[in-house]
Amino acid sequence: MDSLTSPTPEISRTEALRRRYGATPPDDGPPSDGPWNETIASLLDHRSVRGFLADPLPAGTLETLIAAAQSAATSSNMQVWSAITVDDPATRKELASIAGNQKHIEQCPLYLCWIADLSRNERLGQAEQVELEALPWLETFMVACIDAALAAQNAVVAANALGLRTVYIGAMRNDPARVAALLGLPPRSFVVFGLCVGYADPEARNEVKPRLSQSTVLHRERYDATPERRDRALYDAELEKFSARNEMAATTWTRRVLNRMGPIASMNGRERLRATLARLGFEIR
Amino acid sequence: MDSLTSPTPEISRTEALRRRYGATPPDDGPPSDGPWNETIASLLDHRSVRGFLADPLPAGTLETLIAAAQSAATSSNMQVWSAITVDDPATRKELASIAGNQKHIEQCPLYLCWIADLSRNERLGQAEQVELEALPWLETFMVACIDAALAAQNAVVAANALGLRTVYIGAMRNDPARVAALLGLPPRSFVVFGLCVGYADPEARNEVKPRLSQSTVLHRERYDATPERRDRALYDAELEKFSARNEMAATTWTRRVLNRMGPIASMNGRERLRATLARLGFEIR
Repeated sequence: MDSLTSPTPEISRTEALRRRYGATPPDDGPPSDGPWNETIASLLDHRSVRGFLADPLPAGTLETLIAAAQSAATSSNMQVWSAITVDDPATRKELASIAGNQKHIEQCPLYLCWIADLSRNERLGQAEQVELEALPWLETFMVACIDAALAAQNAVVAANALGLRTVYIGAMRNDPARVAALLGLPPRSFVVFGLCVGYADPEARNEVKPRLSQSTVLHRERYDATPERRDRALYDAELEKFSARNEMAATTWTRRVLNRMGPIASMNGRERLRATLARLGFEIR
Repeated sequence: MDSLTSPTPEISRTEALRRRYGATPPDDGPPSDGPWNETIASLLDHRSVRGFLADPLPAGTLETLIAAAQSAATSSNMQVWSAITVDDPATRKELASIAGNQKHIEQCPLYLCWIADLSRNERLGQAEQVELEALPWLETFMVACIDAALAAQNAVVAANALGLRTVYIGAMRNDPARVAALLGLPPRSFVVFGLCVGYADPEARNEVKPRLSQSTVLHRERYDATPERRDRALYDAELEKFSARNEMAATTWTRRVLNRMGPIASMNGRERLRATLARLGFEIR
């Protein structure tokens, strides 16, 4: 029989918005009145978790996450993505090392790699003796990355709805060739990102992280950067308080952007991505 | 007061999996036993809808979708995406025309364009007089596309949970420069895809579309293409029946892949994406 599990805490729209945008968002923030239900509450409650219990997942969880992932839209139904689970401790250790020793990659009960996968359709073309002329273009590469992202996000939503927590691991792109070799990937496929899934360690601090105000990211009819400067000052203050509460180096969003995107050294070698992907069969014309 | 709405039809896990994978998936398909709740049911029930009623959305719906979108993970909290609503009928008409006259772009009550947006952080760098060295690289371009996709997918899930339906419009990429001009986008930003949102026209046929079997897309430890050929034959038969039921040209998945990715003409000009994006400020090194 189907088991019914609904672990989202009961939380009001007002409280969920306060957590997501901080205590002092601009006056033109989202209205406190509006549609609300358990799924929306679960979406707004998302936070990335980097500390997991060793508890295994209930039987059928992986397949449920993948069914959710496959239910996402995919461009022209081409389905140019795949997923791969990694259980072997030695492989996990190597992947964690590639990712700058992110221990949660070794500790989480489920580690899933999400693959932009043009190889499957290429094999289909080869079997049918038809050259797929669309393969080498930026457009098709982008579609594969986006297909993988839409699928993974559905899996994340499904995991949250089951009381699990997740964190994306973009650092698989620190060395995509090594990751591809470890997982035996064919040419024209690569791991876009990993995903840790498991039950959150209650000892690990993980508060909902405030985001930029809606007036900064949502535009109407035409792009309007006018509110940006006002909003950024408010957001800087909010993120500074968030960082202090969560024992991170207490710093503003402005400072984080400058640290993360200013020096090329902060890319951890990902400025070589294009060259590496070319070796993996992605021409990206 | 918060309004509570839960429109997902009650559907069993077994029935949801049957719709998603067809009546005759391979024996190694997802188990009928496993975790199940309303959110998972809503995810598996997804279908793209291209016929909408004129009914407007309840007050606060747009802001709820954006709050859900902003609750998705974003690489290093850089939040390199934006959204823009388009209401003006003349602009809608032009966007529909760019997309090969997809009438639902004109008819849906909410049309949202999702923007890969490096411009905001670039403005921040300029205001702080720091050059953002990470901007011109493929890695950073990809992150912007992925951030936009994760955000949009959360909005799609939220919309479905509110009884709304959606369809992504990848055809905004047929002419990203014209779309950017229509919406007044700054350099280093472009519309990755559009999204129609509204109530489904009950007259419009929209059945859950079966996907490739899990044995084709999900791998364990190492990539394994062995089940692919068997699975493809089953899926071809399934999609042929789906197409016949839905009054589409009854054809297999194999035929669709060859049609969609075989001739470059099927790209509708999107083979020029890289050159166009270079003009919009994306170097993609």
